[in-house]
Amino acid sequence: MRDQYYEQLDQIVDELVLITDRVRSAVADATTALLDTDIATAERVIANESTIEEAIDEVEERALVLLATQQPVATDLRQLVSTLRMVADLQRMSALAVHVSKTARRRMPDAAVPLPVQPLIRDMAKVADSMIASAARIVSERDLDAAAALEFEDDEMDRLRKELFRVLLDGEWPHGVDTAIDLALLGRYYERVGDHAVNMARRVVYLVTGELPVA
Amino acid sequence: MRDQYYEQLDQIVDELVLITDRVRSAVADATTALLDTDIATAERVIANESTIEEAIDEVEERALVLLATQQPVATDLRQLVSTLRMVADLQRMSALAVHVSKTARRRMPDAAVPLPVQPLIRDMAKVADSMIASAARIVSERDLDAAAALEFEDDEMDRLRKELFRVLLDGEWPHGVDTAIDLALLGRYYERVGDHAVNMARRVVYLVTGELPVA
Repeated sequence: MRDQYYEQLDQIVDELVLITDRVRSAVADATTALLDTDIATAERVIANESTIEEAIDEVEERALVLLATQQPVATDLRQLVSTLRMVADLQRMSALAVHVSKTARRRMPDAAVPLPVQPLIRDMAKVADSMIASAARIVSERDLDAAAALEFEDDEMDRLRKELFRVLLDGEWPHGVDTAIDLALLGRYYERVGDHAVNMARRVVYLVTGELPVA
Repeated sequence: MRDQYYEQLDQIVDELVLITDRVRSAVADATTALLDTDIATAERVIANESTIEEAIDEVEERALVLLATQQPVATDLRQLVSTLRMVADLQRMSALAVHVSKTARRRMPDAAVPLPVQPLIRDMAKVADSMIASAARIVSERDLDAAAALEFEDDEMDRLRKELFRVLLDGEWPHGVDTAIDLALLGRYYERVGDHAVNMARRVVYLVTGELPVA
């Protein structure tokens, strides 16, 4: 009975890591849709949201069943509570990938991101990708050093977002208000993806130490 | 012992309602700061975030202690799990009020919102305020009809956000790219405040029925 319980706890972690990988792919695909003006990929990300949603509902349900039936304490309780918080982060990241894809789709056949700004958006997407990959590893291996390192990646994301706004606001933006608004929102979407990766890492720190790191 | 337990469960609901009221004030004050170019109010909202954060941490801690010590089942378990999800919504709404205040502060002594757009932002803030007030009432009274009605307010918020973008993108926006970007982000902040109010209401529906409403 207890063996089965620990197996189920492990399974929940495995599921979380799998979903995190899928969310990572969704964000990467959304970036491809955006920068390569790739309608098929945009549609795929949008269509896949419900599949990720189902996987999230399932792992949430499993965590609730264990909470209700196994009276977990200490670390086990914290793991289940962390799971419930992390699925909310994953849900938001998945929604943000859909926002990026819909922005790309709305502008097709034109590109939403003018050529000169593409490297900046590519860098933001790269940092977001790396942050989600770190979050998956942190959840899987409870790696507190990686969790601390993730905060530095978040600083890099912040720097890139500020750089993007500097470009948009330098007074010589030649691509129109509509493109500037799209880019400001895209910048915010990638930044929020990174924030949610940081939240997940903080939940793992809480899980291991019993203390939430100071935000 | 059990009496004390139920008292503690009720106390958690009371705390959630109190925090929701404080978040509602924070959003209303942020709107005042924004539309009246009121620096003192902007600073107060920004300074108050940590106080709201502390209240959130405390109610989260209480819910965790009950989860760990009382082995709640059925509705009680759902209430505690809902509480953990709702505090995350309240935390985000409070952060969004700070974003609005910081946007206002960054532009002072100028107004971030040009006069012709003020009625539209005022309407969005009014809908957001009403949605937070509904969320507080729904949490306090477990009112499922009010929860259903909240989805209509969310549609109204969506309509206003689209109207705002129509104004920004009509090709004759005379207030510059920087102002357009601020307004696009402000529109998103108010919209997200409304989304979180809807999330809270959905958690109450789950609490009462055991089923999450279809999003």
